[in-house]
Amino acid sequence: MTTTVIGVGLIGGSMALDAKAAGFSDRIVGVDSNRTHGEIALQRGIVDDIVNLEEGVRMADVIILAVPVSVAATLLPGILDIIAAGAVVTDVGSTKRALCDAVRNHPRRGRYVPSHPIAGTENSGPSAALHGLFRNKLGILCESGACDPDALSRVKHLYTVLGMRLLFMEADDHDRHVAYVSHISHITSFVLATTVLEIEKSTSTIFDLAGSGFESTVRLAKSSPDMWTPIFVQNAQFVCEALDAYIKNITAFRQMVASGMSADLSRTMEDANEIRRVLAGLNGKPAENTGPGQERR
Amino acid sequence: MTTTVIGVGLIGGSMALDAKAAGFSDRIVGVDSNRTHGEIALQRGIVDDIVNLEEGVRMADVIILAVPVSVAATLLPGILDIIAAGAVVTDVGSTKRALCDAVRNHPRRGRYVPSHPIAGTENSGPSAALHGLFRNKLGILCESGACDPDALSRVKHLYTVLGMRLLFMEADDHDRHVAYVSHISHITSFVLATTVLEIEKSTSTIFDLAGSGFESTVRLAKSSPDMWTPIFVQNAQFVCEALDAYIKNITAFRQMVASGMSADLSRTMEDANEIRRVLAGLNGKPAENTGPGQERR
Repeated sequence: MTTTVIGVGLIGGSMALDAKAAGFSDRIVGVDSNRTHGEIALQRGIVDDIVNLEEGVRMADVIILAVPVSVAATLLPGILDIIAAGAVVTDVGSTKRALCDAVRNHPRRGRYVPSHPIAGTENSGPSAALHGLFRNKLGILCESGACDPDALSRVKHLYTVLGMRLLFMEADDHDRHVAYVSHISHITSFVLATTVLEIEKSTSTIFDLAGSGFESTVRLAKSSPDMWTPIFVQNAQFVCEALDAYIKNITAFRQMVASGMSADLSRTMEDANEIRRVLAGLNGKPAENTGPGQERR
Repeated sequence: MTTTVIGVGLIGGSMALDAKAAGFSDRIVGVDSNRTHGEIALQRGIVDDIVNLEEGVRMADVIILAVPVSVAATLLPGILDIIAAGAVVTDVGSTKRALCDAVRNHPRRGRYVPSHPIAGTENSGPSAALHGLFRNKLGILCESGACDPDALSRVKHLYTVLGMRLLFMEADDHDRHVAYVSHISHITSFVLATTVLEIEKSTSTIFDLAGSGFESTVRLAKSSPDMWTPIFVQNAQFVCEALDAYIKNITAFRQMVASGMSADLSRTMEDANEIRRVLAGLNGKPAENTGPGQERR
């Protein structure tokens, strides 16, 4: 059985590593428009071979589309046009509606299983690929009703061997929820980096004063613009809804600080502290002293 | 030699633990307005005894003021009034100007060494105190010119035995720099938590979709309002300067997303990526694939 990974970067490369290790596929082939990335993927043993897009698609039983979501939406219809009989196509994009719309009326729509593994790092490229990236993470599958049952089973099996929990969502719900939790946190981190680099002229002072609190808050600002630009643009409606709420709240916070409204500031931060219980799994984990992280005060 | 720690929480308690372990002081006494915190500090062996404020001040050779900055500014003049001859007072607050102003004309101003150890966690209270919190961290000393030389030496020695690097700054410079790097990142994190809890009604969905990227961006939102409210209010001028720049930048980012300005978004995020090199120490550390943190995409 042959699996073709289109885009052997952090996500595609990590998926290839574990799919191979778990025996999901006896042959894993890579496709990448970046020749250097293809060579690194070969050198690291992430893939058995690097071929061109058409070859990779035609020879595959399973195709994993792991390229920026704008490229994925462009490639997907043509890929479905030429896949082998019985082959399955899935993707790993952080937006789902645009991809689903791109093939909604395609005669082979049923062979495509829209998916989104909730995993990654702030790094990119095949040199960032790692084993175990998906273990115990959440894998979201969308529009399962539009997928052929055998195609859906194949992708569920892939995610299961990667160690992921499965969650099913409609594409619109997925895009709204990820905008409200993930996409907004990437933007607040990018903007924090932009702002601190702008107002704190001395980068050595940033380095001196940055405790791990600042480092943790700004970590996502190291993420790849190639990956995130099309995500934000495809998901603009829900991302802007989230940003409008955020901008309203930070403007109100600024006013409380400017006016010395201590009681309101305290109440606002006490309410925000609720995120500790939410992230502890709403399951009575101790709400005190979780996390060893250190930060500047 | 007796050291009195006023406020045996995360910072005061951690300082007591390491000062004792390093043999800085043969006796460490605690003062805390919270009886339970005092009992926990005794039970954990953080302090040898719990006494009242006046006792603790009168018996001390070194006094570490580790209470919220609003309380510190209120207590400091009265503490200087009654310290023993030759005793030294320092503090650990994240703002310095208000404390320096509170004792600028005090006859014993020279016995006070304003300081700020750049360390902490999002947790609070004596149960959060830990060994090694300050090792290899930065200790900032302010207005050293206004300190008696022997008092300054004593506090430098304390920070050195705790394993800290020392940096000297004027109080205003300190307050501006920490607003621009630390205080703003705490506020963006608090506001992220507020916003996500507000727009994502299902807390179980937040838990499901929160990868470690969201967790790291929102971690500081778990911090103590008692500690942070007076910091933001005392440092309102510089905090609002930083927030005004941030609000301008996130509003521009929102506009780029709404208008699908992909090239501008990419350029903005590429510039933000520079924070990776800054945090790597501007020293040619590999700008790729540092940090193992994982996040949702």
